[in-house]
Amino acid sequence: MSTKVSIIGASGYVGGELLRLLSRHPGVEIVAAHSRVHAGEYVHRVHPNLRGVLSLQFTGEDPVSVASKSDLVFLSVPHGASVKLTPKLVDMGVRIIDMSADFRLKDPSAYKLWYHYEHPYPDLLGRFVYGLPELHREELRGARYASAPGCNAAAAILALAPLARSGMIRGTIVVDVKVGSSGAGGKPSLATHFSERFGVVRPYAPAGHRHVAEIEQELRAVSGREHAVAMSAHSVNMVRGILSTSHVFVDSGDMDPAKVWRAYREMYRDEPFIRFVRDKKGIFRYPDPKIVVGSNFADIGFELDPHTSRIVALSAIDNLMKGAAGSALQSMNLMLGFDERTALDAAPLHPI
Amino acid sequence: MSTKVSIIGASGYVGGELLRLLSRHPGVEIVAAHSRVHAGEYVHRVHPNLRGVLSLQFTGEDPVSVASKSDLVFLSVPHGASVKLTPKLVDMGVRIIDMSADFRLKDPSAYKLWYHYEHPYPDLLGRFVYGLPELHREELRGARYASAPGCNAAAAILALAPLARSGMIRGTIVVDVKVGSSGAGGKPSLATHFSERFGVVRPYAPAGHRHVAEIEQELRAVSGREHAVAMSAHSVNMVRGILSTSHVFVDSGDMDPAKVWRAYREMYRDEPFIRFVRDKKGIFRYPDPKIVVGSNFADIGFELDPHTSRIVALSAIDNLMKGAAGSALQSMNLMLGFDERTALDAAPLHPI
Amino acid sequence: MSTKVSIIGASGYVGGELLRLLSRHPGVEIVAAHSRVHAGEYVHRVHPNLRGVLSLQFTGEDPVSVASKSDLVFLSVPHGASVKLTPKLVDMGVRIIDMSADFRLKDPSAYKLWYHYEHPYPDLLGRFVYGLPELHREELRGARYASAPGCNAAAAILALAPLARSGMIRGTIVVDVKVGSSGAGGKPSLATHFSERFGVVRPYAPAGHRHVAEIEQELRAVSGREHAVAMSAHSVNMVRGILSTSHVFVDSGDMDPAKVWRAYREMYRDEPFIRFVRDKKGIFRYPDPKIVVGSNFADIGFELDPHTSRIVALSAIDNLMKGAAGSALQSMNLMLGFDERTALDAAPLHPI
Amino acid sequence: MSTKVSIIGASGYVGGELLRLLSRHPGVEIVAAHSRVHAGEYVHRVHPNLRGVLSLQFTGEDPVSVASKSDLVFLSVPHGASVKLTPKLVDMGVRIIDMSADFRLKDPSAYKLWYHYEHPYPDLLGRFVYGLPELHREELRGARYASAPGCNAAAAILALAPLARSGMIRGTIVVDVKVGSSGAGGKPSLATHFSERFGVVRPYAPAGHRHVAEIEQELRAVSGREHAVAMSAHSVNMVRGILSTSHVFVDSGDMDPAKVWRAYREMYRDEPFIRFVRDKKGIFRYPDPKIVVGSNFADIGFELDPHTSRIVALSAIDNLMKGAAGSALQSMNLMLGFDERTALDAAPLHPI
Repeated sequence: MSTKVSIIGASGYVGGELLRLLSRHPGVEIVAAHSRVHAGEYVHRVHPNLRGVLSLQFTGEDPVSVASKSDLVFLSVPHGASVKLTPKLVDMGVRIIDMSADFRLKDPSAYKLWYHYEHPYPDLLGRFVYGLPELHREELRGARYASAPGCNAAAAILALAPLARSGMIRGTIVVDVKVGSSGAGGKPSLATHFSERFGVVRPYAPAGHRHVAEIEQELRAVSGREHAVAMSAHSVNMVRGILSTSHVFVDSGDMDPAKVWRAYREMYRDEPFIRFVRDKKGIFRYPDPKIVVGSNFADIGFELDPHTSRIVALSAIDNLMKGAAGSALQSMNLMLGFDERTALDAAPLHPI
Repeated sequence: MSTKVSIIGASGYVGGELLRLLSRHPGVEIVAAHSRVHAGEYVHRVHPNLRGVLSLQFTGEDPVSVASKSDLVFLSVPHGASVKLTPKLVDMGVRIIDMSADFRLKDPSAYKLWYHYEHPYPDLLGRFVYGLPELHREELRGARYASAPGCNAAAAILALAPLARSGMIRGTIVVDVKVGSSGAGGKPSLATHFSERFGVVRPYAPAGHRHVAEIEQELRAVSGREHAVAMSAHSVNMVRGILSTSHVFVDSGDMDPAKVWRAYREMYRDEPFIRFVRDKKGIFRYPDPKIVVGSNFADIGFELDPHTSRIVALSAIDNLMKGAAGSALQSMNLMLGFDERTALDAAPLHPI
Repeated sequence: MSTKVSIIGASGYVGGELLRLLSRHPGVEIVAAHSRVHAGEYVHRVHPNLRGVLSLQFTGEDPVSVASKSDLVFLSVPHGASVKLTPKLVDMGVRIIDMSADFRLKDPSAYKLWYHYEHPYPDLLGRFVYGLPELHREELRGARYASAPGCNAAAAILALAPLARSGMIRGTIVVDVKVGSSGAGGKPSLATHFSERFGVVRPYAPAGHRHVAEIEQELRAVSGREHAVAMSAHSVNMVRGILSTSHVFVDSGDMDPAKVWRAYREMYRDEPFIRFVRDKKGIFRYPDPKIVVGSNFADIGFELDPHTSRIVALSAIDNLMKGAAGSALQSMNLMLGFDERTALDAAPLHPI
Repeated sequence: MSTKVSIIGASGYVGGELLRLLSRHPGVEIVAAHSRVHAGEYVHRVHPNLRGVLSLQFTGEDPVSVASKSDLVFLSVPHGASVKLTPKLVDMGVRIIDMSADFRLKDPSAYKLWYHYEHPYPDLLGRFVYGLPELHREELRGARYASAPGCNAAAAILALAPLARSGMIRGTIVVDVKVGSSGAGGKPSLATHFSERFGVVRPYAPAGHRHVAEIEQELRAVSGREHAVAMSAHSVNMVRGILSTSHVFVDSGDMDPAKVWRAYREMYRDEPFIRFVRDKKGIFRYPDPKIVVGSNFADIGFELDPHTSRIVALSAIDNLMKGAAGSALQSMNLMLGFDERTALDAAPLHPI
């Protein structure tokens, strides 16, 4: 018997990706793809890739009513909208995977600092598991509530967590992120107008990026220490993908490839979606988003810079997959007791 | 018990795509990925997307020896190389899917005209089925030998065959093709140097494109008449994908959308990989390669131009999938008695 | 003493290009850059390339008042807006270069057929010179009114006019155009949203493209005969540039490169902005928009297809230059008695 | 009377850019475009943009012989080749602008450390001025020898020099560079094969980038102190352009926009090619290479991050212009007594 799953806010890019993945999941049934604006339309009118793949119409039914027919709900609505809806759904007992930032942070005061609002349900924060299986697998098994990570945060955390865990990191971590357009969503604006957006390397959040909050939270969780993260994000000329370059300073004695390898291996040895990329020859010697597009892989690698006692920790993900829908589905599989990899085994495409 | 499959010439882009698809096929076992140049290397050194997907090394073993262990061989070698190898393999009794042009044409004289060589094995030509299941499904079922279509030809034929079959076409057909870089293969040259290739709309074969031969052959086969094809091909700024725009002149009485629809529906109604795209609203009103990338779909649509009594017949495919490896795998499924869609059900990605 | 020039509708892409070109013209003074929406803003807030190049604010002043201070006005407003404004300006005696389609066609009934409106000032149509100097140089010298060509039309006409003039063309001409995003202007929409527009080959006007009217008009003017044009336009993955591929059928006796060359040479021998591109080696053997970007050049070349008695006539232009502002400035130079090449001598960039 | 100028190594991208710029310089005559490989060919066969712009053939004549006819030579040959040729040219008394790295560093030992060779002419190093006019204008006036900066170095130095000069910088500077393909030159390889290079964010020098040497040298020169630079460079999906993101830590008391502004203004107030980009609205709020392409501008801006006491110093240049040929021509103008801006006043293109 299939688990009944629905998506609230199914017309966005993350919603579309969830539909694509769920359409190939043998253990679930999509009972509703909710969109107020597109109610009644076939999903392929908004997600043209799904033509011939999924014959389903968006429903404009009330989210609570949708949830009442569901075993699990993906909440794929904007920050601020989720926080209004979630408490009602929690009361109903339905499982929830929230794609917004509204339940990612454990510390209510962090919402004031980074998101500039007073969180109205601080008690609920502790009930949501941060949905990155590589860091919270055991908590996710059987969990009722999970919060999918921010896409840039997921990329940075996966590259940094083993280093934080090893205790090597000294001082502020610089995280320089390069990201494709799909992370900004599907709503047209002048900034995303093709003629203005094509070919850019646009610093869109040189400082003040809100994902800093969750990166610092998760690194603290693995290391037991405070870490300061100095993050800058740039839009680059592609649709999918993130490369996160983290500049981590360490003691000169830690400029040892074997030691750094060990830190990564110890933490990720058995991870189904982590690939290590660090080659001496070939053209893809380090992680590159081009090589993960369409998959749930996070490619991780590093280089050492003895000149400044620096580890350059690199990670590449597909922002809509490992950075959003992929991690959410992996979390769902854990919450519902499926094999973690179900519906996530597509290989990336190359060349693309 | 799995069918033993091998790929001769597995280091090219088509070879890599076959490996990606076969790695997810439940009924086959890849017994050899042959590459003389890369013998001994892991396949993911050449096809970086396959890291963590397929743990296999290229073999440099003699192709005949490889074939002797295989139930079916994909020959993914250049034109001219295949024709030397194939007769030996035919003698061995192994099933063959040839990815080159060497066995696509039925008429030996066409090789002289279009490929400028005298075909050394004219008797073999009739034994190879043209591997486009939409036109040759029944011949492919259980067949021993198939020849995968040329990528541009596949795109054009799929859009034109129903019109040819209907008898509507008058005079010369203009086929104007726009194609991504992967169709040109993986060998670097000045023409494919990124700084020279980025942003082009480069007419690379304004006249004399060799796929004309197979387009004319296949249209003749469905209509029973001769058709003249005036083809021009252009490289555009993308890696995967083909859009074929065919300009077809008809009698003014045939400027009837219902009649044209009927021609397409009659021929493709039950096809698992043909999608009709012709919308009055939305932004993907016609076929667009962006919407098929990563899938085996051929999107087909049309527009009518009463000003010149013209049908504009449009088709979009992923050149490495429906235009090569995807059609080949679909043919293999038919040859071996699998469900035709096996390992081909991946939905396209959007946005990408 | 400088000629006083103003631009009505200076905030669009064509307006910005005119500002860029005029800022380097030694014989003119920009007296007004008109934009109602951006009145008071510095032009570099809308055209960021002009920061440090041109210190000028948009004016929201009434267009008639702007015109009263000007010797020449560029009207860079949408179709339909121009037709309302122009008669007033004509009455004032100011010279006009209209960038819209409102005064391109000589035959009033063509507006009904192609633009679906009754032209309110049919008498004015004859007073506007079609602003393509290669076809109308003598009429432009000293002219008071000119109408800049449509970008796709300019590309097609330049490649076809010599063939039409030679009398070689038989039957319907197929014009298959590939164009960058800037031709669609600066207004965001879902169709131009980067994530939806990146990587497309999108048939946006397979039939019914309105530039057909001016192509047929101009070919008729050079040949004295009627020509039917079957046009399809496609958006491709770039910002600037057009490649026009025209498929022209001729008598088999005209499949003669020398004869075709002669047709082009005779017409364009002394043209400052026409370059012939037809090489036997190298990678840019035919026109390619990549090689004209930023310049006023129209690159023209051809190939012969004896298989179908076809001339493939190719032309590449920068749609904002030769396809709009460049041709307009060239026309202005002729109208005002400047050297035709003034402010237009920038070489294209390569690689880009 | 024109100054006689020649280019040794004129077939590369930098050579082509020099030809393009010099072709529009009223005070110089190009006496030779030297290329051994392309001797006898027209320059437009290699630099297709120059067709119709510059009618000149490459010469294969000996470089020394070329220099003997020249007042000034641009040496646009690879590192290691320049160092062999230069001493001979110095003996001849011809002025030299070296485009390679062979004479950029003042400290001979730096060549061993960063370029892994023993510099054979350490005495000559002091005679070459580092060709960044913003830092060395007075030395360049009338100078005989200049060395053009590295492209990534130029971008980083221009953003950092004012901060270094102000004494604000604390600790190691992280320089994270994103660069287009043209910086890697015109020679095809697998890494630059379009299908492999399109869409990448490829870390090509996460550590050990040789431009660190000149950045540290130049910052030391303006501040009188040692600065450690931790640099990582990434190839992104474009042909021209560099964005350099420098992460600079300062005392919390220096988190003052006015103070940082002052540092930039004091140093660059009168610079003809520096533009400050720091807007509160609009879509180009920070430097972006898209907005400088084709020009000699360096766009500079910054953001403050109080969370980590960090200045994010941003700069965008066209790597072939301000990062190579543009700075070289600006240096030439100073060396020869021309107005510094001669032949460099082209405005960037937008949109592009």
